[in-house]
Amino acid sequence: MADSFGTRLQSRIRALGPLCVGIDPSRQLLESWDRPDSVEGLEFCSLAVLEAVIDTAAAIKPQVSFFERFGADGYRVLERLMADARDADILIVADAKRGDVALTNEGYAEAWLHERSPLVADAVTASPYVGFAALAPLFDLATHFGRGVFVLAATSNDDGRAVQLARTEDNERVEDLVLRSVAERNQRDDGLGSLGVVLGATRDHPEFNLASLGGPFLVPGVGAQGATADHVARLFGRCPPATVLASVSRAVLEAGPERAGLRDAARRWRDDLSAALL
Amino acid sequence: MADSFGTRLQSRIRALGPLCVGIDPSRQLLESWDRPDSVEGLEFCSLAVLEAVIDTAAAIKPQVSFFERFGADGYRVLERLMADARDADILIVADAKRGDVALTNEGYAEAWLHERSPLVADAVTASPYVGFAALAPLFDLATHFGRGVFVLAATSNDDGRAVQLARTEDNERVEDLVLRSVAERNQRDDGLGSLGVVLGATRDHPEFNLASLGGPFLVPGVGAQGATADHVARLFGRCPPATVLASVSRAVLEAGPERAGLRDAARRWRDDLSAALL
Repeated sequence: MADSFGTRLQSRIRALGPLCVGIDPSRQLLESWDRPDSVEGLEFCSLAVLEAVIDTAAAIKPQVSFFERFGADGYRVLERLMADARDADILIVADAKRGDVALTNEGYAEAWLHERSPLVADAVTASPYVGFAALAPLFDLATHFGRGVFVLAATSNDDGRAVQLARTEDNERVEDLVLRSVAERNQRDDGLGSLGVVLGATRDHPEFNLASLGGPFLVPGVGAQGATADHVARLFGRCPPATVLASVSRAVLEAGPERAGLRDAARRWRDDLSAALL
Repeated sequence: MADSFGTRLQSRIRALGPLCVGIDPSRQLLESWDRPDSVEGLEFCSLAVLEAVIDTAAAIKPQVSFFERFGADGYRVLERLMADARDADILIVADAKRGDVALTNEGYAEAWLHERSPLVADAVTASPYVGFAALAPLFDLATHFGRGVFVLAATSNDDGRAVQLARTEDNERVEDLVLRSVAERNQRDDGLGSLGVVLGATRDHPEFNLASLGGPFLVPGVGAQGATADHVARLFGRCPPATVLASVSRAVLEAGPERAGLRDAARRWRDDLSAALL
């Protein structure tokens, strides 16, 4: 049995700090870097960010949509990026937000969590709209291979709140249903569990006690979306040490394309987040 | 301005009936067809189904997860399948259930709805957990290119009901919020709108009046998941004619790999669904 993803992530955060750098090679980013909106531009941008943050970030979070927009050729670049990241021993969170009925999720589990897949990540993000229990194939394969799943609880944008704050028949908010369900599943694991949640840094405290999740937090919305290191500390300050992975995308990427600019921006965010959280 | 996807789909349903055949080349399916669980098996299975149903089905619905599990190589097969389907003039619904914040959804829109993408489909399925408004980039590109988006309202599995039946702060069920939001957006279009919903055939009637959606319905859960043509008619009988696309996957696929078996199964389902719905 491999170490759980939670335990591996915790070691990595202790060693390097809580920064995750989002790799979002959007059309707009390639344009601002003065690179063509092509597979070549995509590859240049992705590998430049990886190389610049390799000693600073606990993890990278490639945003799958920006690779998928080039179809199979874009996925080939994502495979290359992930292979390079594995060689460099930096954790990979595939930001794919997949979620469907259980049988279909077996396919997504094979894609993102099976060791023989060219897209295998250390963790993948998942969406619970089709049902939390339906995500079981992702959870099972993650546990088997010492990998992880971050389930969407509360996102960093405001217009997700209607669904995420809706109340179930048991008068529980949807975001709390997700948090509680993840916590229950994590009780199967020793140490920090394989299952985490996505919880935006700009959100209010949920009703569920975050300190009892038993797994890691992936926190988007830091930087360009308005949250600071202090916001992150305010929301997660009582959680166990080294369980929060704070994801910064545009606020690092816009310092490119020069490696020094990217590296300095990543270091500033890493230092701010470490000071606030560790 | 191209005809709306809704209008194109309606013509197609009138000509060929309401059957959509799901192409789900899972590990289990390849095994039951006595084919290797490989890219070659994936390609054989996908193209065999397309060829067998080309004169019978209004649309095919490739389940993206089963292609993604082979990474870029699997996406290359999906591109080939989609190119062949376009040549044969059969509609393609990419069952991807994508959904994220708006900026990220721009990437998904480019992937599945932009005419220059190798993965371009006639419509794509989307998930509203991160917010309905966040899906706007998908809606905008769909409208621009005469393509469509089916947003998840109520799925065919039971464990999705906790989220889908949760009530918002306005005391509206999440599934009704989705239905109402789609209907509002469809009022911008002449004729049948570009936006549809996914609504499982085994579900109870939502509170929202389905007849006023102004767009098409994609109905999974028919066949192996337990719903019959009569279930579909009971739920959608009062909707405008030729607005319901009923998706059958396993109940057709298990009749393979022989083309004749696949074709006969598709015809039976098409005839049953046409009798019940048209």
